[in-house]
Amino acid sequence: MKSFIDVSPDSHFPIQNLPYGVFSTPDNATHRIGVAIGDLILDLSVISHLFCGPVLSSQQNVFKQATLNAIMSLGCAAWKEARATLQGLLTADNPCLRDDQGLRAKAFVQQNTATMHLPADIGDYTDFYSSIDHATNVGTMFRGKENALMPNWKYLPVGYHGRASSVVVSGTPVRRPNGQTRPKDEEPPTYGPCRLMDFELEMAYFVGPGNTMGEPILAKNAHEHIFGCALMNDWSARDIQKWEYIPLGPFGAKNLGTSIGAWVVTMEALMPFTVDNYAQDPVPFSYLQHNDKYTFDVKLEVGIRADGSDHVGTVCRSNFRYMYWTMKQQLAHHTVTGCNMRPGDLLASGTISGPEEESFGSMLELSWRGSKTVDIGNGATRKFLQDGDEVVVTGYCQGEGYKVGFGNCTGKILPAHSVQ
Amino acid sequence: MKSFIDVSPDSHFPIQNLPYGVFSTPDNATHRIGVAIGDLILDLSVISHLFCGPVLSSQQNVFKQATLNAIMSLGCAAWKEARATLQGLLTADNPCLRDDQGLRAKAFVQQNTATMHLPADIGDYTDFYSSIDHATNVGTMFRGKENALMPNWKYLPVGYHGRASSVVVSGTPVRRPNGQTRPKDEEPPTYGPCRLMDFELEMAYFVGPGNTMGEPILAKNAHEHIFGCALMNDWSARDIQKWEYIPLGPFGAKNLGTSIGAWVVTMEALMPFTVDNYAQDPVPFSYLQHNDKYTFDVKLEVGIRADGSDHVGTVCRSNFRYMYWTMKQQLAHHTVTGCNMRPGDLLASGTISGPEEESFGSMLELSWRGSKTVDIGNGATRKFLQDGDEVVVTGYCQGEGYKVGFGNCTGKILPAHSVQ
Ligand SMILES: [Ca+2]
Ligand SMILES: [Ca+2]
Ligand SMILES: [Mg+2]
Ligand SMILES: [Mg+2]
Ligand code: NI
Repeated sequence: MKSFIDVSPDSHFPIQNLPYGVFSTPDNATHRIGVAIGDLILDLSVISHLFCGPVLSSQQNVFKQATLNAIMSLGCAAWKEARATLQGLLTADNPCLRDDQGLRAKAFVQQNTATMHLPADIGDYTDFYSSIDHATNVGTMFRGKENALMPNWKYLPVGYHGRASSVVVSGTPVRRPNGQTRPKDEEPPTYGPCRLMDFELEMAYFVGPGNTMGEPILAKNAHEHIFGCALMNDWSARDIQKWEYIPLGPFGAKNLGTSIGAWVVTMEALMPFTVDNYAQDPVPFSYLQHNDKYTFDVKLEVGIRADGSDHVGTVCRSNFRYMYWTMKQQLAHHTVTGCNMRPGDLLASGTISGPEEESFGSMLELSWRGSKTVDIGNGATRKFLQDGDEVVVTGYCQGEGYKVGFGNCTGKILPAHSVQ
Repeated sequence: MKSFIDVSPDSHFPIQNLPYGVFSTPDNATHRIGVAIGDLILDLSVISHLFCGPVLSSQQNVFKQATLNAIMSLGCAAWKEARATLQGLLTADNPCLRDDQGLRAKAFVQQNTATMHLPADIGDYTDFYSSIDHATNVGTMFRGKENALMPNWKYLPVGYHGRASSVVVSGTPVRRPNGQTRPKDEEPPTYGPCRLMDFELEMAYFVGPGNTMGEPILAKNAHEHIFGCALMNDWSARDIQKWEYIPLGPFGAKNLGTSIGAWVVTMEALMPFTVDNYAQDPVPFSYLQHNDKYTFDVKLEVGIRADGSDHVGTVCRSNFRYMYWTMKQQLAHHTVTGCNMRPGDLLASGTISGPEEESFGSMLELSWRGSKTVDIGNGATRKFLQDGDEVVVTGYCQGEGYKVGFGNCTGKILPAHSVQ
C-alpha cells in the first residue's frame, strides 16, 4: 500500500501506521485530532464528513473533539472502520482527497509547525512492573540474586496506581524535585534536591470502552478494550523513592511528572508485529489466560542530550517484546477485583529491560546503582541525569520496506527550586 | 443564627453547616448543586442569580454545573462569599427567599426524594496513612510492637495513589471481589472470593484551585487549596492486599470501590471545631510546618447492619482529631516533588483509629486480625464483613445547641461473582 503523500522509508508514519494525536497550530489554537502521515498531519476535524461507514456515519462528531476519548469509547468495530476509511482516503489511487486541492490545503498540516497535546483526558493512570529482566535487576541490587523476584511476581502482573494529573506530553520540561531522602541508613533523613534523577523506558497504552465496576474483563476479551500504544518515560527520583516507598509504594518519586509520546499507534497497526509471548511458568490463573500472541516487536531506544549539545547519546537499546506479562493480562488483572476502566485511562508496561546490559531501561540499571558510568558521547558520561539533560525515547516496528513508528518522547530536566 | 427552615437540634444540617452536594430528583434527572438545610436541599441552580457579591456576581454559572469542580476552582474568597450569601438568604429574618413562595416552591427539595451523586469529577484520588494508632496497630500485627512504625512514618505523611474511577457515592453497593490470595505462606496462591472483606473509616477532602506542576504548595499556604471534607469508607480486601502489596503498594485490594459521603462540609463550617494538632516529634521539615490548629473534633461512628436486619450495630466510635499529620501537611507533602493538584482532586486521611479499642477504624483492628469477634447486636458477631452487610459511617461536630454533620456514608456488600 502506498499513499499519494510522500513518505520516506525511514519515516515512522507511512500509510501502514496512521497514529492518532491531538494538535494545534499557530493560526488555530483549537485542539483537534489528526493522524500522522509522512511529515504531515491529516486534520480529521476537516474531513469528519468523509467517515461514512456503517458505524461512523452517525458518529462523525468524535473526530471534532479536542481529545481521543470519544473515539476510544467506540470500540474495535469503529476503530477498524476509521482505519480502513483513512487508508482508503490516503491511498495513491484514490482521487477523492488526492485531487481535491481545496480540501487538501485545509486538511494537511506540517508536523513541524504543529504543537502536540495530550492525546486524551486521562482519568486514571496505572504503571505495571512487567519486565522480568528489570524486576530481576532491581531485586538483585536491593535484595541479592537469590531473592530478586518477590513471591507474587510470577503469579500476577504487579502494578501500582500512578498520578494522572502529572502525565504530560512529549516536549514538556520536568523539574528536578525537592524531597526527603536518607543518604545514610542509620542517620535521619534530609530535605533537598533529588540527587538520583532517572528515566524509565516504558510503553503506555490507552483503554477503549472499558467496564462497569464489579464486572471484570477477562484476558481473552481484553483486546477489544485496548485502543493503542504510545512511548512513555516514567521519570523517577530514586533517592526519594527509596525512603518513601515502604509500605505503600512509590509516591512523590513518581508523581513529579510522567511523559508520553504524542502519537498513539493503534493496535490494528501493531498486530503485524506480534511475536511469541514469554513462556510463563507457573501457568497463570484462568482469568489471566489467552491463547493468541500479544507481545510486540517494537525496537526501543533511549538517548541523552546534554545541555547545549547537539548530540543525542544512545544509552539503551531495548524492545517491547521483553515483557513477561502481556497487556491483556495486565488489563485482566487490573479489573479482576472489580475496578472499572474508562475510555482514555492509561496503563503502562513498567521499565522495559532485556537480558543484555545495553537493553536496560533506566540509569539505575545502566549504571548499576551508580557503580559505573554510562557514556553519552562527546566524552561525557552519566550515572544519573543532570540538570539540562534531555531524554529522548524513540521506537518503531520494522515492516518490509517501512516502519510503524511512535515518533519520540522527549523531556528536559529543569534545575530544582531552591529550598526555603 | 437561625433559619426560617425548621431544623431539629439533632439534624446534621443547620444553618451553621450548609454542606454542598450534587443531586437529582424523580421529576428532573439533571444533576445539580444543592446545600443541605434541615430535611431539605436548597437547589442552587434555581437561585444562582442571588449570588451578587463582588466575586460571585460574575461567576453565577458555577452554581448551574453538574459538579462542584467549578466552585472548588474559585478559591477561598468565593467560598466565603457563597457561604455568607447562603446564610443570609436562609436566615430567619431575611424575607427575600422566606416570603417568596413561588421561588421557595422551586428552590427547595425534600432530601428523602432526591438521589445524590458524586459531588465532583475526581481527577485523582490519594489515600494517606496518617493515624498513628492505626499505623501502630497494623505494624504491631504484622511486624511486632518493636518495629510497628516504619522509619519514614514520623518524617512524612505516607500515602499512595488510589483509583479515582471506582470512587462511588454513598448508597452504591460494592461487590466482594475475586482475586489472588495466599492463605498459607509456604503454599502457592489461590484464586477466588476475598475472605477478609473490610471497611476503613476515613475522612476525605476535596482540593480547591490547586497548583502548577513543579510548583509545590507549602503547608502554611495549604488552607486556600482545601475546599471541604466528606466521610469515606475505603473498602479493603485484606487477604488480597497481603499477597499483592509488596513492593509497589495496595492495588486490587483497594480499587474495587471506595465510598464517599454525598455531603461536602466546607472548611469554613469546620473551623470552629479545631483542636490542638498532634504533638509531632521529630519536628517536621520546613515545608511541612504550619503554626495554626488544623486538627478537627469530628465524632465518627461505624455501624454494620446485617442483611435483612433493621438494626445497625455500632462497632467503632472514633474521632478525626486522632490524626498525626494534618491535611495541610498532607497536601504540602503531596506536592513537594512537584505533583500538580486539580480542583476536585480527592485526598483522604487513612484509617482513623484512636488509642481506645472501641475507636479502631477497621475490622482488621477491631477483631485484631480475626483473633476475636465483634458484636453487631441481635446476637450477631463479625470478624470481617459478610455478604449483605451494610456498613454505615457517620460523623458530626458538636456545636452549642447544633451539630455540623456529614450525613452518612453507606454501602452494602454484594456476593462475589462465581469464578469461571
Ligand atoms: Ca515505572
Ligand atoms: Ca485507606
Ligand atoms: Mg483519575
Ligand atoms: Mg485521574
Ligand atoms: Ni454481574
